[in-house]
Amino acid sequence: MSPEKAQHIRESFAAQSMMATIGAELSTIEGGSVTIRAPILAGSRQQHGFAHAGLTFSIGDSAAGYAALSVMPDGYEVLTTEMKINLLAPAQGELLIARGKVIKPGRRLVIVQADVYALNDGRETHIALLTGTMMPIAPE
Amino acid sequence: MSPEKAQHIRESFAAQSMMATIGAELSTIEGGSVTIRAPILAGSRQQHGFAHAGLTFSIGDSAAGYAALSVMPDGYEVLTTEMKINLLAPAQGELLIARGKVIKPGRRLVIVQADVYALNDGRETHIALLTGTMMPIAPE
Amino acid sequence: MSPEKAQHIRESFAAQSMMATIGAELSTIEGGSVTIRAPILAGSRQQHGFAHAGLTFSIGDSAAGYAALSVMPDGYEVLTTEMKINLLAPAQGELLIARGKVIKPGRRLVIVQADVYALNDGRETHIALLTGTMMPIAPE
Amino acid sequence: MSPEKAQHIRESFAAQSMMATIGAELSTIEGGSVTIRAPILAGSRQQHGFAHAGLTFSIGDSAAGYAALSVMPDGYEVLTTEMKINLLAPAQGELLIARGKVIKPGRRLVIVQADVYALNDGRETHIALLTGTMMPIAPE
Repeated sequence: MSPEKAQHIRESFAAQSMMATIGAELSTIEGGSVTIRAPILAGSRQQHGFAHAGLTFSIGDSAAGYAALSVMPDGYEVLTTEMKINLLAPAQGELLIARGKVIKPGRRLVIVQADVYALNDGRETHIALLTGTMMPIAPE
Repeated sequence: MSPEKAQHIRESFAAQSMMATIGAELSTIEGGSVTIRAPILAGSRQQHGFAHAGLTFSIGDSAAGYAALSVMPDGYEVLTTEMKINLLAPAQGELLIARGKVIKPGRRLVIVQADVYALNDGRETHIALLTGTMMPIAPE
Repeated sequence: MSPEKAQHIRESFAAQSMMATIGAELSTIEGGSVTIRAPILAGSRQQHGFAHAGLTFSIGDSAAGYAALSVMPDGYEVLTTEMKINLLAPAQGELLIARGKVIKPGRRLVIVQADVYALNDGRETHIALLTGTMMPIAPE
Repeated sequence: MSPEKAQHIRESFAAQSMMATIGAELSTIEGGSVTIRAPILAGSRQQHGFAHAGLTFSIGDSAAGYAALSVMPDGYEVLTTEMKINLLAPAQGELLIARGKVIKPGRRLVIVQADVYALNDGRETHIALLTGTMMPIAPE
C-alpha cells in the first residue's frame, strides 16, 4: 500500500467526528486489513454497563470499510451498503479491538469482514463478527 | 402494554449511557413498536458530514430491541444476537428517527425490524432498514 | 410495467432450471412486486419432513430478484449480491408462497425484501423474512 | 467427535430429501467442521446456466448446520434461525464445495460460517460466504 493511501485513510478517519466521540483510534493499516481500537468509555455503554452494540458496530464497520479502502485505487472512497453483525459474547472490559479485512475485492462491490475483541485484564474475548459490502465511489 | 412495562423500557433506555452520548431520546412506546429520535450532532458524523452509520445502527438496534422488550413478560430482558443493516441513502439532515417493530415474537427468539429516516428541512428520507434477532433473558 | 418487461421476467424465470426442479411457478408480476409459489414436494424436504430452508430461500430470493427486475429499464438484468433470511416458523404444509418487493430502487443497487408463507389446510403462516441487495447489470 | 455423533449427522443428512434432489453428498465430518459437495446438475441452474443461488445456499446452510451439530451433546438437533449469504463470484463449473465451521458454540445459540467454492477445470473459486445462527434443540 502506498504512503499516500495510508495517509488518505488517516485523514478520512480523523474527519469522522464519531470516532473522536467514542475515543477510537486507528491502530494498524495494511493492504487489505485495518485495526481500530476504542476504550469502553463511561458514555459508550448499554444498560448493564457493557459496551453498547453501537460502539462495537461503529468500530467494526469502520475497520472493515478502511480495509476495503486500502485496496482501492487512489482517489476512490467507499460506502457501506450493508453490514451484518453477530454478537458472540458480552462486550466487557477496558477496550475493544476491531480487525477488518477484505474477503473479496471488486470493481463494483468489495466484500469485507471484521472481528471485534474485548480486552479484559489482558485477555481477548471474541465478541462480534461482522460481514458486509462496501461500494467503491470513483473520483469525480 | 402495562404502565410497568413502559416504565421498565424508559428506565432501561435511561441506563444506556450511549443514548445520552448521541443525544437520543425515546419518542413513543407501544406494544410491539418503539420510536427513538436522535439529532445528528457535530460529534456523530462520518467523513462527509453525514450521520455516521454507527449512529443509525445504534438507534435502529435500540428501537428494535425495545419493541421486542415491549412484548415480553414482566421481568424479562432482551439481548441483540444479530442485526443486519441495509443503508438506503445518505443520512443527511437535522435528525434521525428510528421506528422499531416486532415481526415475530417468540419464547426463545424475537425477530424484529427497524426503519430509520432522516429528517431534512421537514422532509423524511428512508435511510436504513434493519432486521435482526433478539434473545429473551428470563428473570433469575 | 410494460408487457415486454413482464415477458422478460417470464422468460428469465422459465430459463431457471432450479425453478422447474422444485416445481415453482410465477404467480403474479406487478411493478415492484412479484409472487412465486412452490409445492413442498417430497424431494424438497429437510430431515423432519418440513420444507428445506433451501426451498424457502430459493423462491424468496427469486421473488425479490424479479421484483427488482420489474423496476429496471428494459434490457437490464439483476444479480443477487447478498441476501439474509430469518426463519420464523417451521415450513409445514402443502405450498410455499413468496412475495418479493422493492424497498429502495437505485441505479447501482436495489434493496429488496421477500416474505414467505406456508399454506397449511388453507391457513397461511409467515415462515421467513428475507432482505437483500440486487445489482443491476446494464445491457452490453 | 464420537462415532455416534458422526452417525447421527450421516442419518440426518440422508433424511433430507432436498440433498438427494440436488445430488449433494457429505464429504467430511470433523468436530466443528463439515464439508458438503454437490454437482451443478442440469436442474440446479439459474437463467445464465450458472448454479442457482438456492443450490449454493442449500449446501452452505447444511454444511454450517452440521458443523454446529457436530459440537452439540448427543441427542440434540439444531435449527437455522438466520443465515446471510454474500455472493462473491458466478457459480460456474462442475461442482460446488461448501465448508461449514463453528465460529462460537453456545448453549442457546451457535454462530456458524460456511465458505462455498466452485470447482471449474480443477480450479477452486470462492463463490459465497455465509454467516448465521443455529439454535440447539434439546432432546425431549
